Amino acid sequence: MKVFIVYVHPEPRSLNGALKDLALRTLQNQGHQIQVSDLYAMQFNALATRADFLALQCEDVLHYMAEQLHAAETLAFTQDIREELEKLRWAEVVIFQFPLWWFSMPALLKGWIDRVFAMGVVYGGKFGIYDQGGLRGKKALLSVTSGTRATMYSPTGLNGDIERILYPIQHGILYFVGMQVLPPFVAYNVIHDAQAREQALRDYEQRLLALEATEPIFYHPLSHYDEHRQLRPEFARAEYELHVFAGKEASNDETDKEI
Amino acid sequence: MKVFIVYVHPEPRSLNGALKDLALRTLQNQGHQIQVSDLYAMQFNALATRADFLALQCEDVLHYMAEQLHAAETLAFTQDIREELEKLRWAEVVIFQFPLWWFSMPALLKGWIDRVFAMGVVYGGKFGIYDQGGLRGKKALLSVTSGTRATMYSPTGLNGDIERILYPIQHGILYFVGMQVLPPFVAYNVIHDAQAREQALRDYEQRLLALEATEPIFYHPLSHYDEHRQLRPEFARAEYELHVFAGKEASNDETDKEI
Repeated sequence: MKVFIVYVHPEPRSLNGALKDLALRTLQNQGHQIQVSDLYAMQFNALATRADFLALQCEDVLHYMAEQLHAAETLAFTQDIREELEKLRWAEVVIFQFPLWWFSMPALLKGWIDRVFAMGVVYGGKFGIYDQGGLRGKKALLSVTSGTRATMYSPTGLNGDIERILYPIQHGILYFVGMQVLPPFVAYNVIHDAQAREQALRDYEQRLLALEATEPIFYHPLSHYDEHRQLRPEFARAEYELHVFAGKEASNDETDKEI
Repeated sequence: MKVFIVYVHPEPRSLNGALKDLALRTLQNQGHQIQVSDLYAMQFNALATRADFLALQCEDVLHYMAEQLHAAETLAFTQDIREELEKLRWAEVVIFQFPLWWFSMPALLKGWIDRVFAMGVVYGGKFGIYDQGGLRGKKALLSVTSGTRATMYSPTGLNGDIERILYPIQHGILYFVGMQVLPPFVAYNVIHDAQAREQALRDYEQRLLALEATEPIFYHPLSHYDEHRQLRPEFARAEYELHVFAGKEASNDETDKEI
């Protein structure tokens, strides 16, 4: 497989750096091809501005998405954006390696998304959204670290369910552009617990070795929504499957009957 | 009141710019004091790095949060971070004005959070988290714009419930540091519909005029969680109130009885 790792951490000797190196080594040993974007090392520009376009459709007022669409038609993206788009086009799997900062991605990765996930290229224009997005057919995996315990991210935990925390990224970014989202790898409690860090590296290696066989999270295809973009009642049942695929407790027969 | 507006949009003539100007004018007319951080105009640095600290506790390996904690004790933050912290300290209400990009905030605002919401100052250290956070007593309001229709953000809508989309920001960032989070102001469908933009300005003005009287969203205080940070079953009922305060359909008596 062709695997693109987008790695974001200011400290190369961090656990995130070690997880990135582990992925590189493990996947290369399996014969996969790898490209890495180390956004801090690249000093990637995180700021969406009019300077992202070699030519503007409208010089007067900046409509960023409209300029993206225009740039997609006229190949007017700056070189740094084009290089990342080329890696995305090449990839069959994209791994995002980053620490959970404020229950989300570091600003630098968000800036990469804001600038590189361009309308007209990865969604919209000749493409649609969600399962009609421009990156359909590709897989995505979040590999993230958190300083707090896993139980804090349970459905009754103080921080809220990890599925709820990652939903805007997994559904709103990755599935929005058509990618099949694999269940996330989350390394918990990694700040104060050296054993947890070691265990995370072992667990992640197993996840990487099983990468090709891993089933994606179930998200509804567009065809499950009506003309007002509302989930058709007959498909509401499938919501439950999300939790099965996400590795949570599977349904038992009694729960099935209640739904 | 002392109101701090954090405004993030690359185009001053955008709807976001107009909403920011409207807030400034409306609140000043009511006799409130206002400060604005226009992050694009300020060319605020979005990138968390070791350069954020005038002196490092550990020169060898960067532990960003540990350095924040150290900087909080030794006043070692760079000038740009200290100025924003001073505005936060001054403010009684903080309004965040930004476009929903990828179901979240623009990278520049995330960078402001990553750098300014420092451990030891707005949470942790001598403070705790959530209702024990360093910004407790202050209120926060998200004022955001979206290019798509409101129905896309209903509980059965294609994008997912807006409450679910904003949860990592409202609960994970704003409530985490102790702020009382007011129900968000969301201007929908603002790209292709000029009428929607006009209506958004009128609606927002009404929200601003009612700002002081607006009830915050209900989030559980720490005391509702047990020693494992799990919500105590006797408080699970209160989950429902979230939806009442968020301006959704209130419960009726029959629903109440079922819970």
